[in-house]
Amino acid sequence: MPKALEGVRVLGATRMLAGPYVEMLLADMGAEVLHIELPGQGDDSRYFAPLINGEGSCFIASNRNKKSITLDLRTEEGQEIFRELAQNSDIVVENNRPGTMDKWNIGYESLKEINPGIIMTSVSGFGQTGPYRNRAGLDIIAQAMGGLMFMTGQEDGPPTRVGNAMGDFLVGLYAVYGTLTALYYREKTGQGQHVDAALLDSVIAVLENVIPNYVALGKVTSRIGSRIPGIAPYNIYKAKDGYVVIGVSSNTLWERFTNVIGRTELQEDPRFATPSLRVKNVEELDVITQNWVSQKTVEETVSILNEAGVICGPVYSVDQMIQDPHVIAREMAADLEHPIAGKLKVSGVTPKLSLTPGIIETAPPTLGQHNEEVYKGLLGISEDRLKTLTERGVI
Amino acid sequence: MPKALEGVRVLGATRMLAGPYVEMLLADMGAEVLHIELPGQGDDSRYFAPLINGEGSCFIASNRNKKSITLDLRTEEGQEIFRELAQNSDIVVENNRPGTMDKWNIGYESLKEINPGIIMTSVSGFGQTGPYRNRAGLDIIAQAMGGLMFMTGQEDGPPTRVGNAMGDFLVGLYAVYGTLTALYYREKTGQGQHVDAALLDSVIAVLENVIPNYVALGKVTSRIGSRIPGIAPYNIYKAKDGYVVIGVSSNTLWERFTNVIGRTELQEDPRFATPSLRVKNVEELDVITQNWVSQKTVEETVSILNEAGVICGPVYSVDQMIQDPHVIAREMAADLEHPIAGKLKVSGVTPKLSLTPGIIETAPPTLGQHNEEVYKGLLGISEDRLKTLTERGVI
Repeated sequence: MPKALEGVRVLGATRMLAGPYVEMLLADMGAEVLHIELPGQGDDSRYFAPLINGEGSCFIASNRNKKSITLDLRTEEGQEIFRELAQNSDIVVENNRPGTMDKWNIGYESLKEINPGIIMTSVSGFGQTGPYRNRAGLDIIAQAMGGLMFMTGQEDGPPTRVGNAMGDFLVGLYAVYGTLTALYYREKTGQGQHVDAALLDSVIAVLENVIPNYVALGKVTSRIGSRIPGIAPYNIYKAKDGYVVIGVSSNTLWERFTNVIGRTELQEDPRFATPSLRVKNVEELDVITQNWVSQKTVEETVSILNEAGVICGPVYSVDQMIQDPHVIAREMAADLEHPIAGKLKVSGVTPKLSLTPGIIETAPPTLGQHNEEVYKGLLGISEDRLKTLTERGVI
Repeated sequence: MPKALEGVRVLGATRMLAGPYVEMLLADMGAEVLHIELPGQGDDSRYFAPLINGEGSCFIASNRNKKSITLDLRTEEGQEIFRELAQNSDIVVENNRPGTMDKWNIGYESLKEINPGIIMTSVSGFGQTGPYRNRAGLDIIAQAMGGLMFMTGQEDGPPTRVGNAMGDFLVGLYAVYGTLTALYYREKTGQGQHVDAALLDSVIAVLENVIPNYVALGKVTSRIGSRIPGIAPYNIYKAKDGYVVIGVSSNTLWERFTNVIGRTELQEDPRFATPSLRVKNVEELDVITQNWVSQKTVEETVSILNEAGVICGPVYSVDQMIQDPHVIAREMAADLEHPIAGKLKVSGVTPKLSLTPGIIETAPPTLGQHNEEVYKGLLGISEDRLKTLTERGVI
C-alpha cells in the first residue's frame, strides 16, 4: 500500500502529549518522524503513571510509528546537530516554551536561512504572541480559560473538566491541519513557514455558536448536564444496569419514538407539537423518557429503539466499548505489540483513507533506538565521533 | 497575502455542523467552497434556535468564507449538475447517511470515473463500513459509545456530556487531516481517494492511554471530577467570586506553590515528598489548596500565582473570555459583519500561519447567493435554462 506522506521527514522536539500527538498523526500517514529526547532521560511521558512493565502508558499511546533519537538541545553541539538534521527535514514540530528555540539558535528564522522550505510547527499553551505568551500552559488551564469547563457539568454542580486531555488533542489536531496546509503550499511554491498553534486558541475554536450568542443576544452559555439547548428529548437516561443516550432530533424521530414507547397520544399533545415546544417542555419529556428507560436494561432499550429507527446508544465504559462489534470492525481499538509492555491495544487510526490508509507499523521506540541509523546513516557521523558525543551526553 | 489553498475548489454536500465545519476549515485557508443547499429551504442549521435577526447562529458559526448554491441532489437533473461541478472540483465533502451518495449516482466510484483526481471526504456517525454503518449518529451518541461521557463528570454524579458538540468538531478535524493528507498525495501522484471519517471513531481516537490502561492493567477509567490521575494538585477550586484552576505538574512548581501560599513546611512533609505521593494524598492537598483559594477573589488568586510562576487560570464564562486581553490579542473572538444579523463575533482562525494566515473574509452566505456566479460563470448554464431549473425546483 502506498503511504501518503512517504518521503516527508519530521523532526520532533516535543514531549508530553500535544506535540508528540502532532508527530504521531504525521507518522500514521507515512511520514518518517524522528522524536528527539533528552539523553539518558527521554520524554517525561515515559515515566508518567500508570506504567506497563515499566513503560509509561502515556508514551505508549502517543508515539507509535516513530523513531527515537537522543540529543541535548541545550548544548551548542546538540544545536549544531539539530541544524544538520533540519537541513535534511521537511517539518519541525516543537512544544517548548515560546522563545526557547530562538534562544537555542534553532528558531524558525535561523532554520529558514539554512532550509527555506522548512515548516516549523510550534505548539504551546498560549501561542507565540500575545501578553501571556511566556506563561506555561496545561490542558486544564485551556479548558478553563477557553470557556469549555464553564459549559460542562451538571446544572447544579461546578464547572467540570472534560474527562480526557481534550485541549491537548484539539491543539494537536489544529496543528496538524496547519502543518498539512503549509505542506501543500510548500509543494506548490517551495516556501516554508511557521505554524503557531495554541492550546487556548484551540479550545475557543470549538465553541460552536457560543460567542455570537453572547455578542448578539447576551446569552451566556452555562452548564445544563447532558442536554443541549436546541433539541428535546436529547439526554442521558438511567436504565436498570447502566445509562443510555437518546436524541430525538426531528419530527419523524419524535413520531417513531412516541410509537415505540407506546405513547402515541403525545403526538396530539399541544405541549409537544413542535421541536421548539418540546425544548420548552423538556422537563416533562425527560421524566416520560426516564420512566420508560427505568424499566429496561441498557441492551433492551438500545435494541428496541434501534429497531424502531430512533437514534440512541449505550454509555460505554472502556471495557464495554472495545468489545463492541462495530468498534472491532472499524479497528478503533487497534493491536499494538510492544517489545517490553507486551501485547496491547491502543486507539486506532482515523479517518480511513481508501488508497493510502494509515497503519500502525511499529511500536513506540525505546529511548535512542534509532541513534545509529540516523546519526550514522543520515548525517554520516563517524563511529568515533558518535562515541564521543554519547560520552559527553550530547547524544 | 497569499492563501495556502487558493485554487482548490471544494463541493460541500453537507448540513448541520460536522460537514460544514470541514468545509469551513478548508475555506479559512483559502479554498473556494461551494456549500450546496436544498432549494427554497437550505441547511437545517439556518433555522436552529437561537436566531439572530432571523438567522440561525449555528449556521453563522460554521459557514463563513463560503459560497452558497442551491441544488436538489434527489433529482436526476440535480445529480447531473453535481457531476459537472465535480468535474471542476478537487474535493467533495458530504455528510449524508452512508450509501446515499451512491444511490444518487454521485458516490466516490461514479465521480472517480469522471475525475480520477477527486478526493471525496465522507463524514458520518459510524463510518462507511461496519455493522452500524446505516445507523444515524448524533454527537451525544458518539460521546456515549466512544467512552468519553463515562469519563466526564463528578465522581458521585452521572456520566456527563461535554458542553459543546465535541464529537462533531473532532470528526471535522480528523476529516480535514485526512483530506489534506489526500490532497498532498494527489499533488504528488494525481490520484484521488475516498476519506471515511466517523463521529464514533473520532471520539475513540482521543482517549489517551485509556485503552492500553484497560487492556494491560485492567483499569477502567471513570469520572474523577476535574482531577487527573497523574498530577496533584491539579483541579478546580472555588474562590470568593468564581472558580480557578491550578496545575502543579513538577517539583519546581510544587516548591513555588508552597512558597507562595506560605506553606513551606509542606516541602518537608513526607506525605507530599514526591509527585506520586502527592497524587496518593490528593484529598489533603485539595483541602489545603481550597482553603487558600477560598479567602481570595479569582483575580487575586490568579495574579498571585502567575507572579510566582505557578500554572493557573480563571474559569471563564464566554462574556469573561472574550474580554481577556490575550484572547483579544490572538483575535480568537473575531469580528464578523453579517448583512442581516449585524456586527458579530465568532471563534477565530487557528492555528496562525506566518506566510499564508487564514482569514475571515466573507460572512456566511445567504441561501443561493452564488447561484448565478457558479451556474453561469463556472458551468456556462444559460439564463433560460437557469430559469427553468429554478422554476422546477432543481436549483
